[in-house]
Amino acid sequence: MKAPDLAPAPARRALAGVSNVASLDDAAVLDRYARTVWSAVAEPGDGVAGRLVAALGPVDALASATGAAPSARHGLSGGELDEGRKRWSPRLASAGLGDGVRIAAASGIRLVVPDDPEWPEQLDDLGPHAPFCLWVRGDVATLARLRPSVAIVGARASTSYGDHVAMELAADLAGSGIPIVSGAAYGIDGAAHRAALTVGGTTVALLAGGADRAYPAGHSGLIDRIARDGAVVSEVPCGSMPTKWRFLQRNRLIAALADATVVVEAGWRSGSLNTAGHALELSRALGAVPGPITSAASAGSHKLFRDYGAQCITSGDDVREMLGLHARAPQPSQRDGRPPTDAATRVRDALSTRAWRDASDLARRSGMARDEVEAILGVLHLDDEVEHGPSGWRSVGGGRAGR
Amino acid sequence: MKAPDLAPAPARRALAGVSNVASLDDAAVLDRYARTVWSAVAEPGDGVAGRLVAALGPVDALASATGAAPSARHGLSGGELDEGRKRWSPRLASAGLGDGVRIAAASGIRLVVPDDPEWPEQLDDLGPHAPFCLWVRGDVATLARLRPSVAIVGARASTSYGDHVAMELAADLAGSGIPIVSGAAYGIDGAAHRAALTVGGTTVALLAGGADRAYPAGHSGLIDRIARDGAVVSEVPCGSMPTKWRFLQRNRLIAALADATVVVEAGWRSGSLNTAGHALELSRALGAVPGPITSAASAGSHKLFRDYGAQCITSGDDVREMLGLHARAPQPSQRDGRPPTDAATRVRDALSTRAWRDASDLARRSGMARDEVEAILGVLHLDDEVEHGPSGWRSVGGGRAGR
Repeated sequence: MKAPDLAPAPARRALAGVSNVASLDDAAVLDRYARTVWSAVAEPGDGVAGRLVAALGPVDALASATGAAPSARHGLSGGELDEGRKRWSPRLASAGLGDGVRIAAASGIRLVVPDDPEWPEQLDDLGPHAPFCLWVRGDVATLARLRPSVAIVGARASTSYGDHVAMELAADLAGSGIPIVSGAAYGIDGAAHRAALTVGGTTVALLAGGADRAYPAGHSGLIDRIARDGAVVSEVPCGSMPTKWRFLQRNRLIAALADATVVVEAGWRSGSLNTAGHALELSRALGAVPGPITSAASAGSHKLFRDYGAQCITSGDDVREMLGLHARAPQPSQRDGRPPTDAATRVRDALSTRAWRDASDLARRSGMARDEVEAILGVLHLDDEVEHGPSGWRSVGGGRAGR
Repeated sequence: MKAPDLAPAPARRALAGVSNVASLDDAAVLDRYARTVWSAVAEPGDGVAGRLVAALGPVDALASATGAAPSARHGLSGGELDEGRKRWSPRLASAGLGDGVRIAAASGIRLVVPDDPEWPEQLDDLGPHAPFCLWVRGDVATLARLRPSVAIVGARASTSYGDHVAMELAADLAGSGIPIVSGAAYGIDGAAHRAALTVGGTTVALLAGGADRAYPAGHSGLIDRIARDGAVVSEVPCGSMPTKWRFLQRNRLIAALADATVVVEAGWRSGSLNTAGHALELSRALGAVPGPITSAASAGSHKLFRDYGAQCITSGDDVREMLGLHARAPQPSQRDGRPPTDAATRVRDALSTRAWRDASDLARRSGMARDEVEAILGVLHLDDEVEHGPSGWRSVGGGRAGR
């Protein structure tokens, strides 16, 4: 097995259509070209390839993969490397190794590698499972504007409720400047992209196949619009088929790119649960939108609450809060028109954050009738301003009553 | 202020219609009668009265409350006792102190006190806020059969979704022998009681006013049926009005009686959130049923997920699991269950239902080693997922790999 031809001049010619190579020296050009080779040789998420590239750089890793330049510096066991070589060799021997670059150049699709300023650094959280490069149809600068961003994903077989909620959330968030990341699938994904586009927001679609292939075909118009106003992104070379495996791996990119993943409707075995799992593994925020328990399309969301500890998302504000962007707006004081603020203020004044005081004590301290005090304590209790113990009440420390 | 007349003979006569006093000695009869006085004198949840009764017993506590027998053993501050006396004295002086017992006797309503075998001991978790006694319309034995039991509560202004879910849950649980506790209100409460009765299960209604008063009046028929097949319970004497305070305190009894509280639909300011708060304070399990985020009737449920850590309840099984009654059947592992499924997925991805492909071709397409592909093909062949022909392999049409 010989290494692919990595001479600087042909690499520079091949990349000219997909990357700004004019300002790069030969080593950088070869590095970049070797990444495109890796993206064609290894399936997404190949951790052995990722570790080899991380240890040796993509060029030497390629030489090591072909056995042309054995190295002890790669940190892999001999067995791992042997297994990897067996996986990679059929494609390394294939004649079509450079097809992806040619198709990309012909389609106006750009290459983005970790050295590029547009590279989304949050992908590095994937460690050895990070992509070797990204293929971008649309504005590559979009990739650098995804902090923060939110992934809105969910069932292909969504209900009108789910579509409605996805659109409302995406329009709210994208309209306030938070980009929406999703997978361009039918159902929830499509609704989220569409709403983001409608409000003039930013949206990014991650595809499981090549960035030149609109999938699903019925969304080719939508994917065109995403490419025009945002970016359509893939880690596999142009011309690649979307396979089941690549969908699962594409989900890890969605989870890694966004700061938070929100699942809007997911069946019990939805692929969205896979995205949610990746989000958790990456320590990204995870939310899910509840729905009727009578709807199979929400069963996965409810499972995320129970088994994954997902946040309950009911509004764009909930998402912003999850992102730490701003605190929830204070809710209007609960309950019907109880004796208003003056009386409540007097009860708050009578409360301590340390000593438990019963209602009689509070009535005396506040100079109010006991039953009035108790009524107000009931309201404050519902507002979590006070807590109730065996010997009375006290205000919750740090709250607005904390004095 | 003089103590109410606590002579054994009149007490025995008064209680004869509401309690089995024949086998009790005079001290026990007086103790029992004093509790009925306390239930008429102190508002529900009066912790000072509770501590006084706990320290001195109801008879001496009553004497202490009237100043007839000052005692240093009650553990209350002088101020607390004075305030209590101020609160209690108007009712102690009232001519109608024994009315509740007379109405109960006339209505066939029974008295249950902590000494009775039917007393639900879980109420003792309320400490000084435990009720002095219970007034029960229906079968008092029901009270001793509430371990385990589930409180199903929620919005009065419920939707048809909420009513449906409350009925399904209550029918499932009550039908499997788990009693349903609720508050007899319109909406969710009523749906839960009704479904429990329909399946021949046990249900208990806690009222905020006297057990002789059907409240709401529109539920008098339902409350009659609950009394006939289960129990209608109150801690305030017969004849008492349901007040706002008593509703809030009634909620503590619902939360304390049941092992778990499940909120099915609750508006943002629903009284059910108060019940939920009591359940948490009492270390009872708390669950809520999700609903559409577009429904105001589910806003409180979602708040319980976010702010109270409520469990997400989607079925009777979820409730049973929360009660520790049986474990949920283990779900098939969701996440990416790497080998062997992942490798098989990649081979399936590489197969066609039409074209025959040899192992080398499949290795290249899947990005896998040829020998690994052959091993997986062998397994898939055994499962009849693939067929073998003169020029290679293809997947069997109509199977899960059919694409």
